[in-house]
Parts: sequence; C-alpha cells; structure tokens
Amino acid sequence: MFKHTRKLQYNAKPDRPDPLMARRLQESLGGQWGEVTGMMSYLSQGWSSTGDEKYKDLLLDTGTEEMAHVEMISTMIAYLLEDAPLNPSEEDLKKDPSLAAKYAGMDPEHSIVHGMTASLNNPNGGAWNAGYTTSSGNLVADMRFNVVRESEARLQVSRLYYMTEDEGVRDMLKFLLARETQHQLQFMKAQEELEEKYGVVVPGDMKDIEHDEFAHVLMNFSDGTGSRAFEGQTAKDGEKFTYQENPEAMGGIPKTKPADKRLHNDQG
Amino acid sequence: MFKHTRKLQYNAKPDRPDPLMARRLQESLGGQWGEVTGMMSYLSQGWSSTGDEKYKDLLLDTGTEEMAHVEMISTMIAYLLEDAPLNPSEEDLKKDPSLAAKYAGMDPEHSIVHGMTASLNNPNGGAWNAGYTTSSGNLVADMRFNVVRESEARLQVSRLYYMTEDEGVRDMLKFLLARETQHQLQFMKAQEELEEKYGVVVPGDMKDIEHDEFAHVLMNFSDGTGSRAFEGQTAKDGEKFTYQENPEAMGGIPKTKPADKRLHNDQG
Amino acid sequence: MFKHTRKLQYNAKPDRPDPLMARRLQESLGGQWGEVTGMMSYLSQGWSSTGDEKYKDLLLDTGTEEMAHVEMISTMIAYLLEDAPLNPSEEDLKKDPSLAAKYAGMDPEHSIVHGMTASLNNPNGGAWNAGYTTSSGNLVADMRFNVVRESEARLQVSRLYYMTEDEGVRDMLKFLLARETQHQLQFMKAQEELEEKYGVVVPGDMKDIEHDEFAHVLMNFSDGTGSRAFEGQTAKDGEKFTYQENPEAMGGIPKTKPADKRLHNDQG
Amino acid sequence: MFKHTRKLQYNAKPDRPDPLMARRLQESLGGQWGEVTGMMSYLSQGWSSTGDEKYKDLLLDTGTEEMAHVEMISTMIAYLLEDAPLNPSEEDLKKDPSLAAKYAGMDPEHSIVHGMTASLNNPNGGAWNAGYTTSSGNLVADMRFNVVRESEARLQVSRLYYMTEDEGVRDMLKFLLARETQHQLQFMKAQEELEEKYGVVVPGDMKDIEHDEFAHVLMNFSDGTGSRAFEGQTAKDGEKFTYQENPEAMGGIPKTKPADKRLHNDQG
Amino acid sequence: MFKHTRKLQYNAKPDRPDPLMARRLQESLGGQWGEVTGMMSYLSQGWSSTGDEKYKDLLLDTGTEEMAHVEMISTMIAYLLEDAPLNPSEEDLKKDPSLAAKYAGMDPEHSIVHGMTASLNNPNGGAWNAGYTTSSGNLVADMRFNVVRESEARLQVSRLYYMTEDEGVRDMLKFLLARETQHQLQFMKAQEELEEKYGVVVPGDMKDIEHDEFAHVLMNFSDGTGSRAFEGQTAKDGEKFTYQENPEAMGGIPKTKPADKRLHNDQG
Amino acid sequence: MFKHTRKLQYNAKPDRPDPLMARRLQESLGGQWGEVTGMMSYLSQGWSSTGDEKYKDLLLDTGTEEMAHVEMISTMIAYLLEDAPLNPSEEDLKKDPSLAAKYAGMDPEHSIVHGMTASLNNPNGGAWNAGYTTSSGNLVADMRFNVVRESEARLQVSRLYYMTEDEGVRDMLKFLLARETQHQLQFMKAQEELEEKYGVVVPGDMKDIEHDEFAHVLMNFSDGTGSRAFEGQTAKDGEKFTYQENPEAMGGIPKTKPADKRLHNDQG
Repeated sequence: MFKHTRKLQYNAKPDRPDPLMARRLQESLGGQWGEVTGMMSYLSQGWSSTGDEKYKDLLLDTGTEEMAHVEMISTMIAYLLEDAPLNPSEEDLKKDPSLAAKYAGMDPEHSIVHGMTASLNNPNGGAWNAGYTTSSGNLVADMRFNVVRESEARLQVSRLYYMTEDEGVRDMLKFLLARETQHQLQFMKAQEELEEKYGVVVPGDMKDIEHDEFAHVLMNFSDGTGSRAFEGQTAKDGEKFTYQENPEAMGGIPKTKPADKRLHNDQG
Repeated sequence: MFKHTRKLQYNAKPDRPDPLMARRLQESLGGQWGEVTGMMSYLSQGWSSTGDEKYKDLLLDTGTEEMAHVEMISTMIAYLLEDAPLNPSEEDLKKDPSLAAKYAGMDPEHSIVHGMTASLNNPNGGAWNAGYTTSSGNLVADMRFNVVRESEARLQVSRLYYMTEDEGVRDMLKFLLARETQHQLQFMKAQEELEEKYGVVVPGDMKDIEHDEFAHVLMNFSDGTGSRAFEGQTAKDGEKFTYQENPEAMGGIPKTKPADKRLHNDQG
Repeated sequence: MFKHTRKLQYNAKPDRPDPLMARRLQESLGGQWGEVTGMMSYLSQGWSSTGDEKYKDLLLDTGTEEMAHVEMISTMIAYLLEDAPLNPSEEDLKKDPSLAAKYAGMDPEHSIVHGMTASLNNPNGGAWNAGYTTSSGNLVADMRFNVVRESEARLQVSRLYYMTEDEGVRDMLKFLLARETQHQLQFMKAQEELEEKYGVVVPGDMKDIEHDEFAHVLMNFSDGTGSRAFEGQTAKDGEKFTYQENPEAMGGIPKTKPADKRLHNDQG
Repeated sequence: MFKHTRKLQYNAKPDRPDPLMARRLQESLGGQWGEVTGMMSYLSQGWSSTGDEKYKDLLLDTGTEEMAHVEMISTMIAYLLEDAPLNPSEEDLKKDPSLAAKYAGMDPEHSIVHGMTASLNNPNGGAWNAGYTTSSGNLVADMRFNVVRESEARLQVSRLYYMTEDEGVRDMLKFLLARETQHQLQFMKAQEELEEKYGVVVPGDMKDIEHDEFAHVLMNFSDGTGSRAFEGQTAKDGEKFTYQENPEAMGGIPKTKPADKRLHNDQG
Repeated sequence: MFKHTRKLQYNAKPDRPDPLMARRLQESLGGQWGEVTGMMSYLSQGWSSTGDEKYKDLLLDTGTEEMAHVEMISTMIAYLLEDAPLNPSEEDLKKDPSLAAKYAGMDPEHSIVHGMTASLNNPNGGAWNAGYTTSSGNLVADMRFNVVRESEARLQVSRLYYMTEDEGVRDMLKFLLARETQHQLQFMKAQEELEEKYGVVVPGDMKDIEHDEFAHVLMNFSDGTGSRAFEGQTAKDGEKFTYQENPEAMGGIPKTKPADKRLHNDQG
Repeated sequence: MFKHTRKLQYNAKPDRPDPLMARRLQESLGGQWGEVTGMMSYLSQGWSSTGDEKYKDLLLDTGTEEMAHVEMISTMIAYLLEDAPLNPSEEDLKKDPSLAAKYAGMDPEHSIVHGMTASLNNPNGGAWNAGYTTSSGNLVADMRFNVVRESEARLQVSRLYYMTEDEGVRDMLKFLLARETQHQLQFMKAQEELEEKYGVVVPGDMKDIEHDEFAHVLMNFSDGTGSRAFEGQTAKDGEKFTYQENPEAMGGIPKTKPADKRLHNDQG
C-alpha cells in the first residue's frame, strides 16, 4: 500500500515556458525507457519476488521513487506549457521564426487533448505501453534489464540536458542524472551478487543440457573480420572464445508437407 | 547486402506435430525478447555504429545469425502444425480430453490467418513491434541491452525446453541455448571493454554535471529494511553506497497557473 | 443495413487551405475521443442491445449520424490540404516563417502516404484502434461512457474552434458543437432513466455481496486534506460519506512460494 | 512523492491455485478499465489540476489507492498460478478434462515470459497502454470519465465474482466491489458540484457559439422509431428535445480538386 | 450521410450456440483483413477520390455494404455466445471434455468485458487498428489493395466454413463468399481500366526517372535457382525479364561521421 | 541461413545533411508499406511455401534483397542526420526560418532516443509492427499482396523523390524505383501463373459452395449511380456483372435473448 505527499521529491520548475522542451521531456515520462517503464517494471518485479528480501525491498523502494519522478516530470511539463501559442496570426508568425518553430514543433495533443498538461506518451505521441516493461521471475535477468533501463534513461537525460539552457530544467535533470547513477550502480551490485550465486550465463543451470560445442564460438557471417578480435579472449565464465570463419549450414533444406485441402493453401 | 542459403543453420524438425508447442514457440519468434528483436536490434545498432569496427562486425555477424534463427523457428512451427485439428466432432472431443486441449489451446489464427504456418506474433497473437528493439547510438548502453536480450531469450528457451518431451524440438532448443550462451558472453566482453574506456555509469562524461550528492544514496521509501543491506558496500565505480532511511520531499508543492480560457479547463 | 447519400449532413468547406489545421482536425476523426470512436461504440452497443428498443434505436441512430461526421471531417481535411507545400526551397523558407511553420508542422504522412487526403489517425499519426471503444453489454455503464465520449469530443472541438479564424471551418465546428450538446443530453436522459430502474451504482445488484463497510468511506492516502471536504455529504444513493484519515493496511505481507525449478526463477 | 508499506491494503490470498482464474483477473489489472487505468488517470488528472484543491486531493488519494489495488491483484494472480501445469503428459490429459481445460486455457505467457507471476496485460495478452487513460485538463469531463472507469471496472469484477467459487478470491473481490461503489459515488458527487458551477453540457461556455438550432434535436437516421420516445422530454439543461423524422443532408456534394501532379494520385 | 434499417442484409442466425466459433468469427470482424478493414478502407478511398465518379461510387457503395456485414457478423457472434459456460464445476468439466474445450477455448473477454456480445478484436483479442487500412490517393494502387482485402477475407471465410457444421453459420458464410467473389471481380475490373490508362507499374509516370537498367532484372541472392524460371518471360509491361545470378554490391562501405559529443554516442 | 557483406547494394549517400528528409525517409523504412514490411512478408511467405520451388525462391530472393534496402535507407538516414541542430539559440532561430523549420520539423526521437541514427518507425514515430505483413499460406492471395506492397512503396518513393533536390538522395530513390518496378512485375507474373492454375477468384474451389446468385451483382447502396457503369461488363472469370438498384434487406430483424443474470447486462 502507498501514501502520497504533495511535496515533490525535488525541484521541478523551469525559469520560463518552452513548449518544445515540454514535448521533448515526454520521452523521459512516457517513452520506451522513461520513468513509467522504471516504475512499472520495478514494482512488478518486486511483487513477483519470492527469494532474498533485500532484492524485493530494493525493487519496491526504487519503484516507489520512480513514481515521484513521474510526478516531477509531469509537473515540469505543465509549467513548460504555460503561455504556449494557441493560434498566432500569420503576421505574428511572419515576424518571428522562433514563434513559428514553437508553433509548428509543439505536440498538438498537448493543447487539443490535454489542455496544456502532460500526457503519458513519448514526444511523437506514442502511448506508453506495458510491452516496454520486463518482469520475468528471474532476478539475474531482470536486474540486468534494470541496469539497461537506467543506462538508456540517463543517456536520454544527458541528451536533453544539452537541448536547453533553462537553469530550472537543468536543475531537475541534474538530480535525475544523479539518481540514475545510483540506480545503475545499485542494480549492478545486486546483479553481481546474484551472478555469483547462479552463474554469469542466465539461467545458470542449463549448461549440461545445451549443445555446448556451440557455446563459445564466435561465428562469422560476413566479410567483415572484426568479430575475430575476440578470438582467444577469456569469456566471463572462464572459457575461451574460438572463432569460426565460415560456419556451415548444418540443418538441411526443410520440406514441410502440403496443408489440409480445407485450408486452401494454393501454392503452385 | 545479404545472401541466403536454403539450408538451415541447424536442425529444426520435431518428432511429431504438436500445435500447442507451435503456439508456445511463437514467443521465441515474435515475442518481446524473441529472435526478431535480436535481429532487428543488432543490425540497427551495427548500421548506426561509427566507432571501432570490431563492435560493428560483432553486431552485424550476430544480427545476421539471428535471421537464421528466425528461419529455423518458423520452420519448426510449420512442422509442429501439420495435422492440427480443424474441426473435431463433439463426439471426438468427448472421447479425448487431450484432443480437446489441443483444439482449445491452439492459436486460432494459425489456421484461419496463416494456413498452419508461423506468424510474427507472440503466443497470444500480439504482433511483434519495433518498440521491443533498442538502438541508441551509445554502444555501452546497447551492449548491456543485448546481454539482456540474450538472457531473457535463453531463460524463455529454458522454460520451453521443459514444456515438451519431443526430442526434435529439444535438439533445436539445445542449439539455441548454446548460441545464447555465446551471445551473452560475447556482448558482456564487448560491454566490459567499452566500460573500461568510458566508465561503468552510462554515459561516462556527465559526472561533473549531475548533483552528485544524490549519486550514491540508497533511498528508502518503505517500511521494508532490505535496501539497507547494500549500505557501505563499494559500487562498481569505486565509491561507497550510503543509506537514507527517511528521504525528505525536497521540492515544495507545485502550483501551475490556470490555463488560457480558450482551453476550457473547468476545474472548480 | 445502410444506405448512403453523397450529400454531406452539413457544410464542410473551409475558406482557404491550412495544412496545420488539417493535422489538428485529425484528433476529431481518428483520435481517442474522435468520431470513429463514437460511431463504432454506439453501433456496437446498439447491435448488442437486447432490452428496451428505444435505447437500441437511440444508439443506432446516433452511430449512423457519427458516420456522417466522419465523412464531413474527412472532406474538410482534404480541402484544407489543397496546395500544401511539398518541397519549398531554402530561399522560400528563409523569406517566410509562416511557410516554415506550415512545412515543419504538417503531418508528413498526409503527403507521403495519403496524397493530401485524410488519414484515420490522430494528429501525431497514431492509428485509431478499437481499444478506444466500449461496448460492455450493460447499458447504464455504456450510456455513461457515451456521455463522456461526447463531453471530451465537444471539449476538443471547442479548443479547435479557437485555433482557427477560418469561417468555413468554424461553421462546421459550430454544427458539431451543437450535435455534441444534443448527444450529451440525450445519453444523460437515457442514463437517468436506466439508473432509476437499476440504481446509480453500476451494476445495481451487488450491494448485498460487497463488503459494504468500505462502500462509503473517503480514504485519505496523503497529507492533502481536500478529500475531507466530502465528509458527511450525501451520496447519490442516499447514504452519507464518512472519512478515514489514516487507513490501515489490512492485508498482511504476501508470501508466495518459490516457483517450480523448471521455470528457473533465480531469486537470491 | 510516495511511500510504500509491504502490507497489502486488504486480503489477496485464494484458497487454492487456479490458473484460469489468474488469467481472467488480468482484466482487472492490465485491461482497458483495470486498476492501472484508474491509477494512471487519477494521478495524471491530479497533477494537472490547477483549481479547487479538494478535487486535486480526491484524485491523488484515489490514484494512490489504486496502486494498492494493482499490488493486491498482482499478488493474487501469483498465488493463483502456484502449481500450474507446465507439461502434463498426454496420459494425464486423457484422464482428466479439467486438467486439459486448465492447460489449454492458461495464458502461455504466464509461464514462458513471467515465471508464473502477473503480467501487465489483459487476459488475451494485450499490453496495457496509455490510450486507455484520460486527462483532459477539464475536470467536469474527467470526473465523468472516472465514474465510467469505476462503473465498467465494478461491472467486470461482478462478472468475475460469478466465475469462481474460491472464497479467498471472492473476499478480495467483495472489497474491490465496495471500493468501486465508493469511487463511483465520490466522483459523481464531484461531478455534480462542478456541473452546478459550469453547466451540464461540457464545456459550459460555448452555448452562444454553437449552431443551437441543432442542439436539442433527436435526429432519426433509421426505420426504427425508438428515438422518438425522448421527444418532448426535458433535457438536463432545462430545454425540451424535439424530433426530426427524416433529417435532410444539408451539406451538398463535396468536390475537392485534383492533387498536385507530384503526388501521382492517378484516379481515372 | 447514411441511413440505417434494422433489417439485416442477409441471415445471421446459427442453429445453435458455439462460443469457440464465436471467437473464430472475430477474425472476419476485427481482424487484419476483416469487414471493418474493408468498410474503413473503401469509405476513406471514396471520400478521397477526385477523379472519375464511377470509381467513387463503386467504393462508397461497397464500403456501405461492408457496414452491413459488420452488423451481420456482430449479430451472429452474439447468437453464438448465448448459453456459453460461465463457471462450470470441476465435476462437470471432468465429465465432458467438449465442455472443457469450450470453456478453455473461449475468448475470456467475451464474458468479462462484453457480456457475451461481439468485440471489435481478432480472435486473440487484438484490437482492430487503422494500420490495417489503406487510402493512398492513388486508385490503381488502392484498387489492387482492395482485391487483396477481398482475397484474404474470402480465403479466411473459406477456412471458417470448414470449421463448423452449423447450417445457420454456413448459410451466412456462403453469402459472404459470394459477395467477396463479386468484390474481387469488380475491383479487378476497375483496376484493369485504370491500368490501361496509367500503365501497369504504379505510379505510371516515373519510368523516365528510375534507373531503368535495374527495372527488369531478376536478382538472385541465394543458392536456390528457382527465380531463374522467369528469365526471358515477358513482363506485363511488355519488356522481358533478365536474370542476374550473382548480383554485385554496388554501393561501397558506408562511413558516417561520429556524432556531436553532446549526444554521448560512446562507440569504442 | 544468411551471409552479409558490408558493401551496400547501391549508393546511399546524400550530397548534404537534411534532417527533415531523414524523417520523411522513415516511411520507406518503418512505415506500413516500407522495406521492413517487404522483407518480413516475403521471407515469411517463402518459409511457409510448400509448393512449386520457383515461387519459394522468388520470395526468398526478394526478401533477402529487401534487407539490403533496409540497410541502404538506414545508412542514408544516418548521413542525413549529420549536423542536425540540437539546441539553436532563440537568436539563431529568429534570423533563419529555414533553421526554425528544420528544428521544429525533425523527429525529436532521432536525437533523444537514437543519437542521430535511423529508427524502425514511420515519420510520426509509429513503431513498425507485424500487423503490416501478410503470410496466409495461399500464394495467389499473397502474390497479390506483394504487388500491392511494391505499388504503394513505389508510389511513396515517387512522392519522396519530389520532396528533395539532393542528387545523392535522388540517386538512391531512382534505384529503389527501378527495383520496385521489377518486383511489381515479377510478382504480377507469378500471380498470373497461379491464377491460371487456381482461378482468378481466391480461393478457387469454393464456387460450388457459395450462394452464387449474389456472386456477380453490383449492389447499389447510395444515390450515386456510378457503380452502374460496370453493368453488363465481363468480369475476369468470364461471367457478366448485373446491377441491383435497390437491394433489399433480406435478413430480418435480429433478436438475441437477454444474457445470463450473472453478467449484469442491465438494458432497460
């Protein structure tokens, strides 16, 4: 169960409105790697967790924090949309190309659909969807996913940082950068502990079952020679990579039989 | 540019048809972490790559191999759908619950839409979409994503392995398990090399910009105490985690101003 | 069964082309609350209806009218796209920021995909989908949904009205405003009649089953005190709201058991 | 900002596992009208709110509660998936049609993708998406939407109630039924207050602008006569409905001009 | 503008309920090539048409007819869902595998979401979306699309025909088969007329612009030799196909430059 | 199985960067009718093929070529995004409306998400999805689909051609135009051969089953008279079209029975 305080976790107030930046920030809210993806992934993983309680708590704490980030970015976007142009005259546009840029580059649904408040979409209006999340029941795999979520998210925030000079927006982004540093590092730590227990290859207990003659072979399928650079190096599981310059097709030509007549698969 | 041989990379022939297993295998084809996701992610990343050629080649070689896996699984699914029941009589169903299970549990679109051949969907008929892929332009982040792709995919193949006794299906799965071992390990190796160059926190050059007083703090947002377990441990970047039991809301209560009248935001 | 006349229900001709307004109008066509949502929801509800014939007719009449609105807006958009810039020279752009705004702010798929005619998308190119519709089999709930559809749609049309000065566009919008007034009112009337019969809480016959000690309690989960404003007021079903300042978590800490080994849920 | 307690808001423990019921309950979690839709809609509306604080608090309190419901249902689904059949033998299936039903009717992604824990999908595996939510900036319209959310959700829970005999599942559903009674009633109350202030037709200030000769006319587009039943009745805004038996097409036949040659609109 | 009659275009009444067949029929309603796709494509194309009126009328007549088909199939599905099992006891299931098949194979959203009436989804619950439609502004291309729509639809109806013995269902399917024959043939006729005017290659006026040395070459990218079978045959535009056994990569190795530092594209 | 060469099939290098054209070209990559749709459709059809080997090879050869086109367009887009504006100052914008157009009209995800490289989306950021592909098991229908894919794609390339003056971009488009000519023609040829064998109406063997009194009737559902133009003409199957001016509703008024009480279908 959750409780809410109306105070924000950190400042989320720009120095001045900027509807283009509002649109861009939607990536950190409703985009593939945005805060909603973090929140829903970590909470789902936490609720699905049945093992060591410290991982469950780490996931639920972080998922709960991400909700506060969703709140902060939603607030920031609403501030940035204040005073956005609704219907500038042709004359006004002709005088000021920066107004033209704002007017043409805004998300039109910010005004028509949301009354100048945040949506749950990415900057192109793509609705956030649960296909962005992961909760597999296997914590090694999922901790790796979480590290990726925080890496891609921090990368995007770093790019957004250089797309504005607004000190208020930058202040918030500096806070998010720091939290995404922490989250990368904490999930890496958890990942390492779990890898130590279960092995570095996920899942850890199928080694005896797989066809292991193919398990450490760099296969070359091109005229590029770069993959060979890894030949002879030691993989994280302690074995060495070999290299196959010209891998054979081992599987024969498939020949399924014609389908039941009632399917009408006319095929020549 | 690509060339194709009609021979499969490895065997993809079951001992006998099994329409339920055909449906389940769609996860490895058109699911979130299936082979199409690998193929499209690695090729896109390879084509976007501008740095060290060995990473580009590794990505393009692996992306090219994944296409062969898409081909193998598509073939396997078509074999598994041979002889699937189209319209068993009520009497036949009454006699045989295993026939009833097959009939009820099949993907109805395998017959109606695809004439008993593979789709590009997951087992629930969800169409594969490019929102499953990642190509960010940053290879550290993307190599991490690729390790996740291979981890989640190998996890799913491991589960599928225990959902069938068919030796033909298992033979193919054993091959995929091995390749996904290799791909996890090779992308980890590339990831490590890149981390050594750019730092473990992605991206590597924003440390001086972020609010770093928040960059190594485990924040507790719950009555669970598990996150504290990481307090004092050394993060991968060499610094130590601290722990904040009761993080304050630092940001004040937001107060955006009422919107332009022409937006009709009647709000009380 | 339906018949079509090529005459439009009402005027749909702008005074002059305006490709930005064309894009914005797509919201009323293919957006979440657009005319297609109305048409498909009301027709589906009408076809699913088994009770009093007057509601069935009201739904089918209105659904049939919405098709005429789809037609009008599609026509208007095609008119607005006449003469839209395909490839202005850099010089032309440099001379005229209002041309730059038009060129940058148009939906690029209007030209590339649709040859300057309407799409079935929202202004951000999101394809209309049936997840926007509702047809539940319960007319009280669905009449309420229909009132919402007309409310959100009229709100959006009101906003669009202030985004143009074109008298032709405004003439059509004034007609749509009026029809959405009528549709809000007629569905409210139907809703009220049905509530009188079945009760205001949907569905009406589960009162004896629910845990009714929780059925009239305003639960406070925040440090905001606003919800208390409703304490002691009379709800529409005649009972009074009570207020719980600090609701307890009543449910204990969940503890699911570890999964079958064959699922490989490595969890620490 | 939020805080979390690991205790659930209410009981979420079934008497025994039931993988078919687990699948069905996904509707209340990740379906169009499920708890995630409630949570994300109410929080978004609350964060977008700029008017009377009591509505903001009501929205944020209820959104925060919905997160607890997401947690409860996720937990319940994990319990229901314990001991679900992974790979029953043909013999076992032949002996027990109820096992066959379970095996065929389960969501295959519950095992393959989620390791027998909840997803964020509906029972057909459709990923939850933000297109299900509404946050328009206009509280009258959105309060109406919220009443619908609670109505459709309670309707679905009522149906789910009759799809199981499990007393543990039913106990949770009885709680949800009660909360959805409260939420319907509280949002209706807020809606009424707001309607009193702004008028019953949303938005309230366009009456003078619309073509009001069409604003109270029941238009008949069929050979059904049912809509006439509302003729002469008083609409909620105090005016009377009139009835038009055979509405004319008032708009003429549209005639857009042929497109620019460079668009290649070959049209006969 | 449209008018509706409550009478169906043709019979849509099964001899007896069959919830599995109800689910399967959703393909012809809300599937990729279902009736909604026909209706929305033909109407959109008709409304976008600016040339010869006979094509516009053909499109609008057929689009209007498809709406009647949507109505018929919706009705049929509702009939087929009468008496579907909501909650059979374990004992009942154990006695009757055909009941188990019905119970497990039904679309669970037919009951939970739609109260045993039709949805606008495919049999796997995938929501119909406008990405299935085409309206390009070019009638030659679109008439070809329409022939495909009718071909794939008739193929699916043919398969559905053999999935039931119910004479009522079959009666409706026989009617749909006939109409889809007509629609294939009429759109082919229109296509041919338009090809005669504009040429068989769409669009007709780019021949002088394309690199025409590549315009009639069968390029072989495999070890299969089948494509050679078309060598020397006359294409529909009167020219002969040539065959290239081993097409060269003509384009060099691409070398984009490293991105702006502010994008943080760490690449090795 | 596939092999890759790093050389492109044809030139893909613009004369100069142009981020608006980069966005527009995404249509040919990740749009409904883009190269990914071709590649995935033809490969799937080829792998599903069980009949005459020449069709299988034609499909696999062409599918393999389309991958090279995906590669070319991805490369072109990355070149076009070089030097795109990240954060122009208000002053710079005020001076140059063509910069304003570029800045406002770019895809913001090209920078934020992809670091100025190609996505797998359409120009509006819509993620490519498998619902764009077709693989039905019936080659006559699918060859027709393939002709449409190439027709719509070539139409879009023709439009894109006139949206740029860049000779490098045009060089690539001229090559694609030629290949899409070839692919239209080759699939038409295959289609014709298959029609000769199976008949022009798909599928060919249901003629005796359909209600053939409706199989050659142009039905008029409007006040337009254009459809009559086809009356008396000979359809491609040799029979003549008749015309029905005023088709009757033959099917009666449907009357489904009220649903099970447990579904709560309150309906008046």
